[in-house]
Amino acid sequence: MTRTVIASATREVVIGDDRPFVIIGERINPTGRKLLAEEMKAGDFSRVERDTIAQVEAGAHMLDVNAGIPLADEPAILARTIQLVQSLTDVPLSIDSSIVEALEAGLAVYRGRALVNSVTGEEERLERVLPLVKKYGAAVVAISNDETGISEDPDVRFAVAKRIVERASDHGIPREDIVVDPLLMPIGALPTAGRQVFRILGRLRDELKVNSTCGASNVSFGLPSRELINGTYLAMAMASGLTSAITNPLAEGVRHAVMAGDVLMGNDRDAGRWIRTFRSVPVDGEQGRRINRRRASQPPPG
Amino acid sequence: MTRTVIASATREVVIGDDRPFVIIGERINPTGRKLLAEEMKAGDFSRVERDTIAQVEAGAHMLDVNAGIPLADEPAILARTIQLVQSLTDVPLSIDSSIVEALEAGLAVYRGRALVNSVTGEEERLERVLPLVKKYGAAVVAISNDETGISEDPDVRFAVAKRIVERASDHGIPREDIVVDPLLMPIGALPTAGRQVFRILGRLRDELKVNSTCGASNVSFGLPSRELINGTYLAMAMASGLTSAITNPLAEGVRHAVMAGDVLMGNDRDAGRWIRTFRSVPVDGEQGRRINRRRASQPPPG
Repeated sequence: MTRTVIASATREVVIGDDRPFVIIGERINPTGRKLLAEEMKAGDFSRVERDTIAQVEAGAHMLDVNAGIPLADEPAILARTIQLVQSLTDVPLSIDSSIVEALEAGLAVYRGRALVNSVTGEEERLERVLPLVKKYGAAVVAISNDETGISEDPDVRFAVAKRIVERASDHGIPREDIVVDPLLMPIGALPTAGRQVFRILGRLRDELKVNSTCGASNVSFGLPSRELINGTYLAMAMASGLTSAITNPLAEGVRHAVMAGDVLMGNDRDAGRWIRTFRSVPVDGEQGRRINRRRASQPPPG
Repeated sequence: MTRTVIASATREVVIGDDRPFVIIGERINPTGRKLLAEEMKAGDFSRVERDTIAQVEAGAHMLDVNAGIPLADEPAILARTIQLVQSLTDVPLSIDSSIVEALEAGLAVYRGRALVNSVTGEEERLERVLPLVKKYGAAVVAISNDETGISEDPDVRFAVAKRIVERASDHGIPREDIVVDPLLMPIGALPTAGRQVFRILGRLRDELKVNSTCGASNVSFGLPSRELINGTYLAMAMASGLTSAITNPLAEGVRHAVMAGDVLMGNDRDAGRWIRTFRSVPVDGEQGRRINRRRASQPPPG
């Protein structure tokens, strides 16, 4: 079993095929959230605070932190956001930026063992990000695209992931510190997107023996009842080998699908969490839904 | 792509990896339904009529028909039930009995191309059921256990399935007419039950190239919120290769998970059925649930 350990100063999260699925909260991200972007740029972090608390209360095991705001000082804002989030919660963080200087600024202030999000198979990215990951003793998300873009061929995407793992090894980063993102396209645009990813996930688990993650909210882009598609996708991906996801823990449908997935993968011991959460819930009732919301807040797995 | 064709006198259903998942309604079965058993034995088939209509309206593509009542004339009751059900609906049927004489009585009156449920890897069953399947030009569910019982080793269960396919071939039955049931245990009793089945399903699809089915309601035995576990299980199994299931189409959670699974497997063309079903559904609202129920009734796939 490959285990990836991410930590804050006081708490560890382990990603692995024999562990409960790790939900990485996606909300602290100004991309597509105009109001949040304006507030963060102006130095108002009240919404970040609320998003932090709400996601942890909803059961997020980790939080992704992104400060990608056009025409702003992203390294400074990302570092400040990370310090703020770490003052509010002890769940470990994923430091998310496409700007290497921002990743470095975030790593410099982060207390613990971060997940760097991300490196791709592009030569220039590999040679800039991997030394940083090594320097700070972090783990890293490896996105399976390269200079040629995102291949629709699952075997090509797998080959890119394999090359990143090999290059990381050259930098002294072991495979257990690589979490591969196989890149999920919206299913409405590409009907084979799901099958492609399920196929890659199986090979990542069985052949490359690495953990995996996925931005799991865009699969339903453009479709109605998105939460139901996203939750179902996550369960299907879990069966195929997915061990973590960057998604919205506030979505009950997503949370419940992941909890059921843990039971069915044998990773909720004696179905203990499932039984504690649902045993007194009346079927379909209003009271039931209220009870669910309260009980579904879970401490992160150890 | 392996395609299994089941038919009534006027309607065909195709089971296949590139087709919408086939739901075989499980309700017409007196096992564990004491009242239904007593009524059927006494010649009262009103509940069978209601179960037929309700399951087809809820979107069942096929119906399983079982008349296993202790101390009753099962062959006669099964034949009568099949004739009744075929007078009410044109969805194809699965003829379900552990008694070979009952299977034969059912096949004798069935109009169309039935699915015989089932044969096991036991020598005596193989030699009695396979000739019947050949004689009536039917398809057959192959359950992957034999004289030694049900192995917990997925490779042994796969080997039993392979042996049944080979033996069927000796009887002139092609592999596309075998639908393998990998045997799902309750997850509460056996935490590895899900993983075992996901592994076998992948091999059935990729190596043995046969369709598969599963009794999908017992996986949650003994747990609360069973419908959520059953629906999530089906989606996970679909990603692993499952192409049909004997389950309860009246359970909304099961139906929605299968519909989302079809979208994510690329088998709901342009997500057309999904969009028709959900586009005007208010999120989580009472009205939404009512609309869902009505719209989720689907014609069987062709």
